[in-house]
Amino acid sequence: MKFRNFKMVGYVVFGRGSFDQLDEILAPNRKGDAPMIFLVDHFFEGKELVNRIPLRGRDKVIYADVTYEPKTSQVDKLADQLKQEFGTISGIVGIGGGSTMDLAKAVSLMMNNPGSSADYQGWDLVKYPGVYKAGIPTLSGTGAEVSRTCVLTGPTRKLGMNSDFTPFDQIVLDPALTTNAPRNQRFYTGMDCYIHCIESLEGTFLNEFSKSYGEKALQLCQEVFLGDGEWTDAHDDKLMMASYAGGMSIAYSQVGVAHAVSYGLSYLLGTKHGIGNCIVMNHLEEYYPAGVAEFKRMVEKNQIDIPVGICKGLTDEQFDTMINVSLGMKPLWENALGKDWEKIMTREKLRALYERL
Amino acid sequence: MKFRNFKMVGYVVFGRGSFDQLDEILAPNRKGDAPMIFLVDHFFEGKELVNRIPLRGRDKVIYADVTYEPKTSQVDKLADQLKQEFGTISGIVGIGGGSTMDLAKAVSLMMNNPGSSADYQGWDLVKYPGVYKAGIPTLSGTGAEVSRTCVLTGPTRKLGMNSDFTPFDQIVLDPALTTNAPRNQRFYTGMDCYIHCIESLEGTFLNEFSKSYGEKALQLCQEVFLGDGEWTDAHDDKLMMASYAGGMSIAYSQVGVAHAVSYGLSYLLGTKHGIGNCIVMNHLEEYYPAGVAEFKRMVEKNQIDIPVGICKGLTDEQFDTMINVSLGMKPLWENALGKDWEKIMTREKLRALYERL
Repeated sequence: MKFRNFKMVGYVVFGRGSFDQLDEILAPNRKGDAPMIFLVDHFFEGKELVNRIPLRGRDKVIYADVTYEPKTSQVDKLADQLKQEFGTISGIVGIGGGSTMDLAKAVSLMMNNPGSSADYQGWDLVKYPGVYKAGIPTLSGTGAEVSRTCVLTGPTRKLGMNSDFTPFDQIVLDPALTTNAPRNQRFYTGMDCYIHCIESLEGTFLNEFSKSYGEKALQLCQEVFLGDGEWTDAHDDKLMMASYAGGMSIAYSQVGVAHAVSYGLSYLLGTKHGIGNCIVMNHLEEYYPAGVAEFKRMVEKNQIDIPVGICKGLTDEQFDTMINVSLGMKPLWENALGKDWEKIMTREKLRALYERL
Repeated sequence: MKFRNFKMVGYVVFGRGSFDQLDEILAPNRKGDAPMIFLVDHFFEGKELVNRIPLRGRDKVIYADVTYEPKTSQVDKLADQLKQEFGTISGIVGIGGGSTMDLAKAVSLMMNNPGSSADYQGWDLVKYPGVYKAGIPTLSGTGAEVSRTCVLTGPTRKLGMNSDFTPFDQIVLDPALTTNAPRNQRFYTGMDCYIHCIESLEGTFLNEFSKSYGEKALQLCQEVFLGDGEWTDAHDDKLMMASYAGGMSIAYSQVGVAHAVSYGLSYLLGTKHGIGNCIVMNHLEEYYPAGVAEFKRMVEKNQIDIPVGICKGLTDEQFDTMINVSLGMKPLWENALGKDWEKIMTREKLRALYERL
C-alpha cells in the first residue's frame, strides 16, 4: 500500500492514578484461571508500585533486567519459561520504560508463534496474534506504548518485530508513575521523543497526520525542558503526552541521522537508545542546526552531562561494524538526506563522526 | 472507572489518494461471499467518487438521505432491509459527513443486536459487536470518524449509541475527498470542530490528553480559517487532521453551551448540527468572549452567512421543548458553567437566548 494502514492500540486510558483501575481493566481479558504475567522493570523491585499490582490467582510478577536493551534470546527464554510453567497465560502486562514494553510485546507474540523471535525481526513476518498485552510506561519519551514494533537485538541484527500484531491491546498512561524517575534517565528518554521530532519534522517523508502529531510532541517537549520553574506534575503529564504523540507521528514519518548513528553505538557498545541519541545529537549541527542548538540549551538548563569520548580506543574493525549497522538503516538516511544520501554520508564521513562521539 | 478507558478505532490510513487503497483494505475483512455495503451520502449520487468504489460480487451501494440527521427509524429500516436481502453482510462502509458515518456505525451495530436502535440510545447499552465497519469522511470537522457514539434522533430523544462497540474498525482519511465540498457546508462542519475545541478547552473537565488534542485541533482550525490566501489542498489536509484531533480530544473533555443549545434546535427544528452550532455560537459572547470574537472573524473572512431569526414565531410550547432538551444535557452545562450551572442557566435565561437566535 502506498499509505501505511496504521494499526492503533486497542484501548487508551490517561489519567493521574489510572494505574489503580488496572484490576478492572484486566478483568474482562482474563481467560479462565490462566494467569496474567506482569513484566516489571527491575528498577521497581522492592518499590511501592509492585504492591499496587492487582495480582489474582496464579498471576506472577517477573522482573525484567533491562540493564541492556532486549535481546531475542531473552525474549525466547521468557516465553519458553512461561509455556513450561503455565501452558497458556491470559496476557502480559509490561510495566517500565521502552525496553520493558518492547519485551512485553515480544513475549506476547512468542507465546503464539513458533520458533525464535529472531525469525520475526523485520516487517510483517509475525504469523499469529500474540496473547493479550498491555503497556504501562513508567518513563516517557520512547513512544513504544503506541508503536507497531518492539526493537530487539538478535544474533545478526538489531531490528524490531514490526507487525499489525505488535501494538498493545491496552495502554495505561498514568503520569504519576513517572514521578520518581531518575533525573538523567528522564532526560535521556524524553530526548528520544524530542530528537525524533526534529528528525521527522525536518525529514523528507512527512504528511499532515505525522506533522500534526510531531509538532504537538515537539511543543510539549519544549514546554517541559525549556520552561521556567521546578519540575511539577504538569511536566510529567505533558511529557507523557509528548511521548504518545511522538510515537503516533511515526506512522507516516521516519527518524534520521541521530537514530541511524545511535543504532551503531547500541549494536557495538550496548549504549542504550535514549542516551545514545543524546550522545550523537550533540554533534549533529551540520544536519539539524536549529534542533541541535535547542537541544544544547535543554541539556544546559536541565544540568545534564552528556558522555563524550565513548568511541576512544576502538579498533578499525569495531568502527566498521558500527558503520555497517548504521548505513544499513537506509530509510533513515534517505529521510534525512534525500535520495542521494549515499553520496553525502560516505563511510569516511561517518567514521569521522563516530570518532568525535 | 474514574478515567474513561477509551476505545480507539482499529486502523487509520491518512493520505491524499488513500481512498484508492480501499479494495486492498477491505479484502481481509470480507467473509466469504457476504457483500460489503457502501452507505454513501446522497450528495455523491452520479458523481465520480461512486465509480471509484471497489465493488465486488454482491456488494451494494446505498445512498443515504442525510437531508435530516439520522433517525432511529431510518437505522432500523436500513438494517432490516439488509437482513432481508442478504441475511449476513461482510460489513458497512460509510462514505460522507458525520450523518452518514453515524448511520453506518448504527446500522453495523443493528445487524447484530436485537430490537430497535432506540433501545440502545444511551451509554453502554449495546450488547454485541456489530459487523465490520469503516468510516470515510468527505467533510471534516465532526470527529465522528473517531468517536464512540453515533448520534440518532429517536422517538423520545436525540442521543447516541455510546459504546465500545461503536467506533469504526477502520477509517480512511483522504483529504482529497473533501476538495469539492460546498463552501458553506465545509465551514459549518469545520466550525463543529472549532466550537467544540473552544467549549472543551474552556470547560471544567479536561486533562492533558484532551488538552493536547484540543489545542492541536484549535491551532489547525485557526490556520485553516484565518490564514492568508486561497483555499488549497493543504487546507483540506489540515482540516481533516483538526477533525480527527478534535474527535480524539473528546475522550476526557466535554462540549458546552453551544452544543447544549444547538441540540434543542436540532430536536425541534431539525437544524443540522454544524449550522446549528454556528447559529448559537454567534450569540455566546457572555460565555466564550475570546472564542466568539475569533469565530466572528472566521465568519467574516470566509464570507459565510449565519442564519438569524430562526426562532421567530415559535410557540411557548415549542420553546419549552427546546429548553427541556437543552437542559437535559447536564454534563455539557456542568462542564461549561460548573457544579452550580442550574442557578446560572435558568429556563428564563435560556428562553431569552433561544429568542435571540
